[in-house]
Amino acid sequence: MLSHIFALAILSVVGLGVSGFPETEPPKEDRGGPITERYKDEARRIIDSVMAGNDAYRKLEHLCLRIGHRLTGSSDMFRAVEWAFEQMRLDGHENARREQVMAPHWLRGAESAAMITPRYAPMAMLGLGGSVPTPKDGITAPVVVANDWDDLDWLQREHIEGRILLFNYKMPPYDPEKGSGYGDAVQYRVKGASRGAALGAVAVLVRSVTANSLRTPHTGSLRYQGPYPKIPAAAISIEDAEMIARLVDAKVPVTVNLKMQCRNLDPTPSANVTAELRGTTLPDEIVVIGGHLDSWDVGQGAQDDGGGCVIAMEAITVLRKLNMIPKRTIRVVLWANEENGLAGAKGYVEAHKDELSRHVAAIESDGGVFRPTGFSVECADAECERVAAEQLRDIMNLLSPLGSMDVKTGSSGADVGPMRASGVVLMGHRVEGSKYFDYHHSAADTIDKVDPTELSMNVAALATVAYVIADMPERLGRPVAGETVESGSE
Amino acid sequence: MLSHIFALAILSVVGLGVSGFPETEPPKEDRGGPITERYKDEARRIIDSVMAGNDAYRKLEHLCLRIGHRLTGSSDMFRAVEWAFEQMRLDGHENARREQVMAPHWLRGAESAAMITPRYAPMAMLGLGGSVPTPKDGITAPVVVANDWDDLDWLQREHIEGRILLFNYKMPPYDPEKGSGYGDAVQYRVKGASRGAALGAVAVLVRSVTANSLRTPHTGSLRYQGPYPKIPAAAISIEDAEMIARLVDAKVPVTVNLKMQCRNLDPTPSANVTAELRGTTLPDEIVVIGGHLDSWDVGQGAQDDGGGCVIAMEAITVLRKLNMIPKRTIRVVLWANEENGLAGAKGYVEAHKDELSRHVAAIESDGGVFRPTGFSVECADAECERVAAEQLRDIMNLLSPLGSMDVKTGSSGADVGPMRASGVVLMGHRVEGSKYFDYHHSAADTIDKVDPTELSMNVAALATVAYVIADMPERLGRPVAGETVESGSE
Repeated sequence: MLSHIFALAILSVVGLGVSGFPETEPPKEDRGGPITERYKDEARRIIDSVMAGNDAYRKLEHLCLRIGHRLTGSSDMFRAVEWAFEQMRLDGHENARREQVMAPHWLRGAESAAMITPRYAPMAMLGLGGSVPTPKDGITAPVVVANDWDDLDWLQREHIEGRILLFNYKMPPYDPEKGSGYGDAVQYRVKGASRGAALGAVAVLVRSVTANSLRTPHTGSLRYQGPYPKIPAAAISIEDAEMIARLVDAKVPVTVNLKMQCRNLDPTPSANVTAELRGTTLPDEIVVIGGHLDSWDVGQGAQDDGGGCVIAMEAITVLRKLNMIPKRTIRVVLWANEENGLAGAKGYVEAHKDELSRHVAAIESDGGVFRPTGFSVECADAECERVAAEQLRDIMNLLSPLGSMDVKTGSSGADVGPMRASGVVLMGHRVEGSKYFDYHHSAADTIDKVDPTELSMNVAALATVAYVIADMPERLGRPVAGETVESGSE
Repeated sequence: MLSHIFALAILSVVGLGVSGFPETEPPKEDRGGPITERYKDEARRIIDSVMAGNDAYRKLEHLCLRIGHRLTGSSDMFRAVEWAFEQMRLDGHENARREQVMAPHWLRGAESAAMITPRYAPMAMLGLGGSVPTPKDGITAPVVVANDWDDLDWLQREHIEGRILLFNYKMPPYDPEKGSGYGDAVQYRVKGASRGAALGAVAVLVRSVTANSLRTPHTGSLRYQGPYPKIPAAAISIEDAEMIARLVDAKVPVTVNLKMQCRNLDPTPSANVTAELRGTTLPDEIVVIGGHLDSWDVGQGAQDDGGGCVIAMEAITVLRKLNMIPKRTIRVVLWANEENGLAGAKGYVEAHKDELSRHVAAIESDGGVFRPTGFSVECADAECERVAAEQLRDIMNLLSPLGSMDVKTGSSGADVGPMRASGVVLMGHRVEGSKYFDYHHSAADTIDKVDPTELSMNVAALATVAYVIADMPERLGRPVAGETVESGSE
């Protein structure tokens, strides 16, 4: 039933013929490198099969609609763990496991923020993950505005002490060349509280880390640093930040009341959920793929990162159905606690330290599930990174039916990061990024933002890349004569 | 200070030379009709002056930031009336007045909606204006979904009785040819409650009337009709409507709890705020311009319709500063209670019935303050409408520095509607419409959505059109030999 719909949909998205390959320009034998040449038939088979129909969207609908958001420690996250574990067993995968970790446990409570001078105006807000609460009646104080760190330096302690500090840093509109600007903007959310506390602020408000808003606040973690008091911090919508900043610019005194009944509780159990497509001849060598199963406690965690989870789950399901079992093992890891502690990532490295030297690659999908655009790669060893990037550029040719792909070096994903020191080749699954931060960490991150065809394209891309990395004679990031090379392909 | 900024800004928006007219193609003498020819110097003077700097954005910032939203009967609306009255006196206009009307008084209370089966999920909602409340503990019932009226007919009473009925009509994305699709979509908000009650529904939820959402509900009026029980009704966000509809489609029973403590109170006093640029030789002939001062009780009523108010206020202020006093009187009317009763519009017709025959035109600005695109016109008399449209097409040439403008017939605005029966030429001020309904009736309708240059362009357009209609020898909508024609222009 689905195959027909997907086939039609994909035609309109990437302009393909019914085979899944461009009609006007069939793949040329001389176009790719040795890996392209070796795997073009397998890649075509995977992509055609995925685009003809797969179970990823149904899985994601279940996760988003039946379970919903799933912050670490919530009953929702426990339910998500059970569901993912059962789903991977039902799909017939080997070694399905829930690998327990102890993780930070932050709980949002009743919360509100309102401008009370010069008039009463309730604001759209979300407390930041990890924040301490306010007193029961909240904190009421005049507001001082800093547009960036330079402003903060200029303001100095005398203008900040005893006040609520608003960081009004404006994340720029998405730029295809420069990207989202998230990296700069998120600093204020992460570091703002302690930077403000260092100068005597009693609480911090942060303009939401997004370029687009329909009065939508975006939460996320803060990090208390240094010897400064831990003060409450919340994100407010762009509109509310604009309101306050414009009034303050016009020399109108603004007073705000901030109430947050959140709590930092004792560490909670959570779990990475893992399962394997066990390799044939080199089963102890592992290619990890996955997204993080936890999410913030608003919306449905659809783009961040339910999509990444179901892409990985479906990638090995598709390969298993096609009976395309690579030499090495592909292990799905659905990470626990990416959003507020990385306890899953750290726990994995600890629990699997004896086999990390046999981890050939670890690929994270955590940038949303829009149209795939390629992969990123990084490695502690520069030569390894160079070789891996070259190999991946060759592999990208296999994905041409899904559009133009490229390889960027020097980044990957948060959950695979702790494996860096063990020399694992770390990879990030990249997608078109213009809308991701409109939804990220907000109540608007819901299933309706996920396009079924784009989700399938990501399944196809990841399944293909993971299959080839797991099967090719070369070990990713090592010269052809490296330790795991066999003579020829089977 | 502002002039330089505006001059630069306008250059980039409409590609003008510093004079405000296209550099490459100066206005041709043979291009317009007789009105263009007669008024080209005056029009140029108005447009250049407005675009060089004006007070409209400051006024709108004051209304939005210092007063905020202003539903009829709220203290905010009373403050808005006083502010507008004082502002127009300060601007030196004649006959500034608050003309009292008695208006419907609806008050939102605490309200919430949550899906409670198959899991607990609070929804983003706004009760509909005029709705009756629920019992204190709310209404809890299974949900039945109708995508449109056809679905409703198909469902029949047995599937609806005792249930909460969700109207899940999908407003299409904005289309430059077909427009917003608001007219069709809003029917479910206005009529849904009684259509549902007629079939036994216990409450109604309506998918918000918008094509874009970041979990943003949009309120608006409902109208109870017929002999059916008045049942509570609320708008929910697109995301929440999608969640419920997808679950119900998948045969998952969905139960919702809806709580609304809103109240319909006794009629409240409110007021149209009026002031005049009194005409020189025909002061008893009147051209009305205005927007509505009330708004919904969320956001700041910036696009709907603070912008329309300040455009009209500023239009006569600019003319007065230029000492361009037309023959006829231009009367600003800032309408009361457009959103939930039209009491201002109805009260004006009653209070001014003796002078309606001398109302030459009534122009409403209530479509947002994006880039101006022209005007609409309608008249009870078809010949009058034809003549007026022809004259207005001539006048549109005068606005060419602001972009291409056209005239549409057969529509105008809600507040001027009641003058139709008196033969007044009714006009609507039209603007580019792709984003208006993203913000309309929502918490996202805030000052940051208004571009200062686009606001100025609207002031320039309205000031020019109102000036010409008020000054030209012809009376709008009547042949040149009509009753108010003088011999020649001064």
